[in-house]
Amino acid sequence: MDDIVSPVAVVDEDKCRRNIRQMEKKAREANVIFRPHFKTHQSNAIGRWFRDAGVEKIAVSSFSMAEYFARDNWQDIMVAFPVNVREMNKINDLASRLRLGILISDADVLDTLKKKLLNFVDFYLKIDVGSHRTGFDQDDKTQIEKVLQKAKQNPNMRFKGFVAHAGHTYHTTSLNDVQKIFIKGSEEIANLKEYFIKDYPGIIASWGDTPTCSLMNEFPGIDEIRPGNFVFYDLMQYHLASCDWDHIAMAVATPVVARHHQRKEIVLYGGAVHLSKDSMEIDDNLIYGEVVRFTERGWEPFTKPIYVNRLSQEHGIFTCPDEYWDMFTPGSLAGVVPVHSCLAADLLKNYYEINEGVFIDS
Amino acid sequence: MDDIVSPVAVVDEDKCRRNIRQMEKKAREANVIFRPHFKTHQSNAIGRWFRDAGVEKIAVSSFSMAEYFARDNWQDIMVAFPVNVREMNKINDLASRLRLGILISDADVLDTLKKKLLNFVDFYLKIDVGSHRTGFDQDDKTQIEKVLQKAKQNPNMRFKGFVAHAGHTYHTTSLNDVQKIFIKGSEEIANLKEYFIKDYPGIIASWGDTPTCSLMNEFPGIDEIRPGNFVFYDLMQYHLASCDWDHIAMAVATPVVARHHQRKEIVLYGGAVHLSKDSMEIDDNLIYGEVVRFTERGWEPFTKPIYVNRLSQEHGIFTCPDEYWDMFTPGSLAGVVPVHSCLAADLLKNYYEINEGVFIDS
Repeated sequence: MDDIVSPVAVVDEDKCRRNIRQMEKKAREANVIFRPHFKTHQSNAIGRWFRDAGVEKIAVSSFSMAEYFARDNWQDIMVAFPVNVREMNKINDLASRLRLGILISDADVLDTLKKKLLNFVDFYLKIDVGSHRTGFDQDDKTQIEKVLQKAKQNPNMRFKGFVAHAGHTYHTTSLNDVQKIFIKGSEEIANLKEYFIKDYPGIIASWGDTPTCSLMNEFPGIDEIRPGNFVFYDLMQYHLASCDWDHIAMAVATPVVARHHQRKEIVLYGGAVHLSKDSMEIDDNLIYGEVVRFTERGWEPFTKPIYVNRLSQEHGIFTCPDEYWDMFTPGSLAGVVPVHSCLAADLLKNYYEINEGVFIDS
Repeated sequence: MDDIVSPVAVVDEDKCRRNIRQMEKKAREANVIFRPHFKTHQSNAIGRWFRDAGVEKIAVSSFSMAEYFARDNWQDIMVAFPVNVREMNKINDLASRLRLGILISDADVLDTLKKKLLNFVDFYLKIDVGSHRTGFDQDDKTQIEKVLQKAKQNPNMRFKGFVAHAGHTYHTTSLNDVQKIFIKGSEEIANLKEYFIKDYPGIIASWGDTPTCSLMNEFPGIDEIRPGNFVFYDLMQYHLASCDWDHIAMAVATPVVARHHQRKEIVLYGGAVHLSKDSMEIDDNLIYGEVVRFTERGWEPFTKPIYVNRLSQEHGIFTCPDEYWDMFTPGSLAGVVPVHSCLAADLLKNYYEINEGVFIDS
């Protein structure tokens, strides 16, 4: 790994492909559409690993990201974020070239879309299933009906279904809690679909979030799943039990730059601009990632787990047990499994594939 | 501001230039070298505003950043981060083209530098003045002496002085605390300089951090200051009293994408990938930025302050008082003064100058 001179996201292609295949198989067996969310990796090279597994429909979180993947010929893209009507030029351009799905989370955008949407799009209504981030209230059928009536006046918009993202699964502590969230939320959007399908044949119920899609094997009432993080997983998902350690397919390579014997601390070139400031609590300590050792074809954790416990803009710092001290000489490379791989990948932007030992496009 | 369709860092050139001029004047009057840290803005366009104020020496936090600024002909660059010896190619290349300063924070890098450093560099010893992030212990003159002796054997390295960064000023709550930290820390590196100057004529004591450089007017014992954040300032600095509101020269423009009347919540296209997850406590609440209103030539806070109180990858959410509700229609633009402008600028990468109404290079 001598070619790695500064922080980079190291990925294990075999593990990524296995994560992809397993999720694709699960979706197929559960008879739901698999529309993976590409905001996690934001990479055309990694996107092709999905294509190899038969994936044709994807979700992204911005129109810029849709443009990026359109350049690699993805033809069915849902922008799974409340439509930003300041980007009408991009929307019209994308809609002219591919099958574009947009999300409506507020009725007030319909007037702008009526005036400025020039090409055909699918639209979905975002339903709040309990995370209270955004979306229509599932109870408020009157409001939903009103929105759909208004949208009907726009010949460039076809109603495609209901979309939910159960972000609150990230705050659960047991499989049981995740199941409860899924059962309640999926019932809500399935009921909405049943109610409206008479008037809108062909609409679907679409469900996101990696914890649910990883932990559940069946998705009754749901027609489509949109997990994203599962391609890499991360420390947060591992501690939620969404994955085994062996499924984690990304670790950040960080050069060791200094050691401070008295404090038993090691300083990494790897800070908030590489790992993000996302943190989690482990044994009552706030941590920013788990330090791992790179091996010939991967990485492994230490028997006594080591966590990055301080982070500034470029520095990451961890306390090192005596027995591992000599492994971290300045100039050597430490690995850090990030708390949240989506944010770390967004920051690092490029990838190094560990089996082949090559940088891949991002 | 119709050209702004997605999150961007909006800067006020007049305010930036005034912040730069004031700091330059302060340094000149205090008779210290002004070596601003460019990691905050990472922009050649903004770098030129410093050049207009007579700045010739700069600090950056990585060799890649040094390469970027070297392309705009900066000729005296200190990489104010413990030297990463995996980047010897970049170091040798930069050292062949300009006056390069590197930081030594661990004696173990000297062997690699002896073998691989091909061109002449200045080096500084990083001294830990209490933030315990990295650096040599100021008490340990024996260790420092040993390092300097060893470095002497490398004809490509010239000892240039001691460098401190009082990161712990960010955790203070009063001017008095900042003064105490400065007085203690500056004395420590000034004493070291006095002790070693017989053997190394011309060495200096260099001091970083925006709170100290903003709040102090004189820097006894110090030869050089390296503030960075002051070019923009931010919410953190404002609450530390490092600056007035009127000095804050950067706000993130974020499109409003949805409103949820029942919860009185507004959803912005502006999340962790735009603002960073850096947070601070205000009135016992963790917040991620202050929402402001753009005016013809700037932005202003609301009489009842509004804070972004939830953040996910792309969403920012705030609770909106009734009287402001109608100002945030979907498709309109809200401003967010970030908690930490350095991290937000690093993420957003490009700038929109509000007086001229143009995008500037990054």
